[in-house]
Amino acid sequence: MSAYQPLLTLIQERIEQKDKSPLYLKIADSVKLATEQQMLKGGDFIPTEREFSDKLGVSRITVRKALDILDKEGVIVRSRGLGTMISETVEYSSKEATGFSQQVVLKGKKPDTLWIKKDVVLCSSEIAKMLKIAENDQVFLLKRVRYIDEQAVSIEESYVPAHLIHDPDEIQLSLYDYFRSQDISPTKTQSRVSAKMPTEEFLEKLNIDETVPVLLIEQTAYDKKGVPIEYSINRCRGDMYVFVSED
Amino acid sequence: MSAYQPLLTLIQERIEQKDKSPLYLKIADSVKLATEQQMLKGGDFIPTEREFSDKLGVSRITVRKALDILDKEGVIVRSRGLGTMISETVEYSSKEATGFSQQVVLKGKKPDTLWIKKDVVLCSSEIAKMLKIAENDQVFLLKRVRYIDEQAVSIEESYVPAHLIHDPDEIQLSLYDYFRSQDISPTKTQSRVSAKMPTEEFLEKLNIDETVPVLLIEQTAYDKKGVPIEYSINRCRGDMYVFVSED
Repeated sequence: MSAYQPLLTLIQERIEQKDKSPLYLKIADSVKLATEQQMLKGGDFIPTEREFSDKLGVSRITVRKALDILDKEGVIVRSRGLGTMISETVEYSSKEATGFSQQVVLKGKKPDTLWIKKDVVLCSSEIAKMLKIAENDQVFLLKRVRYIDEQAVSIEESYVPAHLIHDPDEIQLSLYDYFRSQDISPTKTQSRVSAKMPTEEFLEKLNIDETVPVLLIEQTAYDKKGVPIEYSINRCRGDMYVFVSED
Repeated sequence: MSAYQPLLTLIQERIEQKDKSPLYLKIADSVKLATEQQMLKGGDFIPTEREFSDKLGVSRITVRKALDILDKEGVIVRSRGLGTMISETVEYSSKEATGFSQQVVLKGKKPDTLWIKKDVVLCSSEIAKMLKIAENDQVFLLKRVRYIDEQAVSIEESYVPAHLIHDPDEIQLSLYDYFRSQDISPTKTQSRVSAKMPTEEFLEKLNIDETVPVLLIEQTAYDKKGVPIEYSINRCRGDMYVFVSED
């Protein structure tokens, strides 16, 4: 029995279900399901287009459509010499696309977020400039560490004008969900992305080697009137994150 | 005489010119002119808002408007403790904003571009996928190294379907200018940005320390019909480039 048999069985069962989903979506969804069930993990290989086609008895065109979707959504990575594997990279989008937790679950891994600060502080001149408020105005500093399978992968700091947050304890995984619960709509984002060597805090909190560079993502989010509602400084493991944008 | 005197004189002369340019634009333009004339270089400090205001006899609001423009265009960097300095960072935009050469000139430095390849090659499966063409189709591989003051700062590879380029010798500084001369309009761009440690080629060509991380920018450009016209892999010095996007 091939190492792929559990996955192939899962797909076969999905294909045999009588519903109107097109075949290629049934295949793509089964691969996602396999990652959610930890049958597949980031870095695991999956069959080639030809192998899928032979074993499942479906056309290569159908398999290709399924793989194209998984590729586009960042679930898999295809590489010529190596074959196709479940992606290990988390996408950090300039738009609010698939959130961190959902992406990690789709890699068959366990996401976690630990808030280490939800404090009101006085605004420095740099932060004031980004948020278009006055120096020393009150802002919330929200700081969290994100984890994949208990391993810290990013440190994220958000600065939010204090009057926009009434109860910081209500902020769970997503600051944007909290904003929307307060009728604030994040509408536009400006991002500056750079590559840095890790800071001492980063090395310590993430417990990583000095040769892992940092993907530094600085973002300002605006509401629909163009008023800044958040400025964030996000330090991510360079080997695990990629920033994506489209315009 | 203060070290700022030449700059202040330049601005004063511009202010005294009788034209309809608003005062803040005259000030901002003079700072740009000073960098173009090498009176100011990347890393040089400029006066504070208060100093400008006192020495030029203009309001602080006017000075602030001038500095805001210079800041927004990436000409200057303001930082609390250190003051305001001419930026040393090159912005790599997802949109076609101010080009590399123009930006470098605005830092009072000398830009250069050396094409090291303009060859027709057979397309690998990865490149084929990005350009939505067949493996082994002919593509142009355009490879160049960019320099600031004779120091190499990035290595950029572009893959373009061969039929889109009739005479590669006509491509000068800007591939997009060439596209437009052929009635091809780059309309949409997808970018993936990550932080990597430098490759051997990068270390060698750029003659830099191993502790400078690489900002890796992978982009696909599409024409107005959504057909891919370029896939590029750009490796930039992490200490000199920042990727900017807005959406």
